[in-house]
Amino acid sequence: MGTEQKSLRDALRVRPGAVNLAGYDTAATPLSPGGKDKALRAMAASPLAELQERLYAEATAGGRRSVLLVLQGTDTAGKGGVVNHVVELLSPEGVRVTAFKVPTPEEAAHHFLWRIRKALPSPGVVGVFDRSHYEDVLVPRVHELVPESEWRRRYEEINAFEADLAAKGTTVVKCFLHISHATQRERLLARLADPTKQWKFQEADLDERAYWSDYQAAYSGMLDACDSDAAPWYVVPSDRKWYRNWAIGELLRETLVELDPQYPKLDLDLPRLRLRLRPPY
Amino acid sequence: MGTEQKSLRDALRVRPGAVNLAGYDTAATPLSPGGKDKALRAMAASPLAELQERLYAEATAGGRRSVLLVLQGTDTAGKGGVVNHVVELLSPEGVRVTAFKVPTPEEAAHHFLWRIRKALPSPGVVGVFDRSHYEDVLVPRVHELVPESEWRRRYEEINAFEADLAAKGTTVVKCFLHISHATQRERLLARLADPTKQWKFQEADLDERAYWSDYQAAYSGMLDACDSDAAPWYVVPSDRKWYRNWAIGELLRETLVELDPQYPKLDLDLPRLRLRLRPPY
Repeated sequence: MGTEQKSLRDALRVRPGAVNLAGYDTAATPLSPGGKDKALRAMAASPLAELQERLYAEATAGGRRSVLLVLQGTDTAGKGGVVNHVVELLSPEGVRVTAFKVPTPEEAAHHFLWRIRKALPSPGVVGVFDRSHYEDVLVPRVHELVPESEWRRRYEEINAFEADLAAKGTTVVKCFLHISHATQRERLLARLADPTKQWKFQEADLDERAYWSDYQAAYSGMLDACDSDAAPWYVVPSDRKWYRNWAIGELLRETLVELDPQYPKLDLDLPRLRLRLRPPY
Repeated sequence: MGTEQKSLRDALRVRPGAVNLAGYDTAATPLSPGGKDKALRAMAASPLAELQERLYAEATAGGRRSVLLVLQGTDTAGKGGVVNHVVELLSPEGVRVTAFKVPTPEEAAHHFLWRIRKALPSPGVVGVFDRSHYEDVLVPRVHELVPESEWRRRYEEINAFEADLAAKGTTVVKCFLHISHATQRERLLARLADPTKQWKFQEADLDERAYWSDYQAAYSGMLDACDSDAAPWYVVPSDRKWYRNWAIGELLRETLVELDPQYPKLDLDLPRLRLRLRPPY
């Protein structure tokens, strides 16, 4: 009797067809291990660190594989929280986190993928993008900074770029952190109320919030146009922080389990090497 | 009645005068909170993460300060262990770890500080160097790849470079992880015995071990010539892993407490901002 265990990647993968984010529940908890406590325990017991070490070890023997976790989502969706609570489960030596801000003048003078290419993970490394090249099909679209033909062209460039990444050994895991309009309100109010969080607040965030529907349309478009088997999009319900963190850890775990990285098999002449370490040597 | 609490920085700072590492106990545990269990509990309760967040927050409001932790030590001294157990206490978003390997052809074609400058922490960030510019006064000296006049000149360059870093707001914390010849033997044998650790073993490490005394002399010279108030050297007894990890976390904590980073004080018009978030907005 075969038992087919559904993977979280299957459960959260954006559904084919014209994507409309309004149809995705922001408070859902698919395949959750239970409530918050069980999720925290599952994360504490996660084999992520060992899987990552294997990937890193593999690269020391010539392996070319790496992983790139892309985090997108509106302000307060929890990209920083994922870095602090999920990425923290990994060994810092094998992780490279890059937060992409408003492009600097130098970045803006280059092709939009220029700064992205500079931040790609080396073999063996898990790269994490807090925002990414997708910013360039979001902000410019919402604020009509470029014509539609241009952001549509960027979709194609991104697809070609990610297919190339995949072909060269980088497994791309793209997570859209999906929260509701009301959740963002609560979180912005919480920032305002807490003097140790006010530094994260910018009034510009309220200005952007006024474009909520336009952003939802732009996110939907990005999910629609740039989901591929080489670089799939996952829609992660993120109103519940514990679920968001557990789910993204689990997406990474499933990805690494499938990669099945191995400690390199070395042909060491142990007796001779041990002899070289016999005291007084 | 004044009680003068001795700082770990005072206790571990390299002592002035001609440095001879043979006079530094590799198994000592100065100012230790007790044994291994107490050290682990102290680390779990460490305020490092909050101090780091304050440093990061400060930089979002224009602060220019950063920290650079430099880790040096012979093979198996535990540089990777410090990254995994101490740096892991910090938020990944505010940390940048760089492991310097044998220079690539491109790196070797540049001045030895070229690759170092590219890896310096931005304002608000804690940079961590697993090996560093000090490699260039160690390997070339031991293997006589450059004349003495050259590595002595590099000492001066390094001092000027670090003084400049300090003047620009980067607090440099340099840790020499000091282990005994016997401890290195044990750790190399342990690597050989464990299939999940063999990938860290390289026979070249045994070749280098044959130069143990020359390296100790080169380390002593580096500690002697490049200790300064702007960029002090700490000799961290590292035969006991738990002490090494606790001590480096504590050096970082003391450093951050002295910097006393503050959440930026923002002049937010809270009533008006809250109004902008009143439903349905």
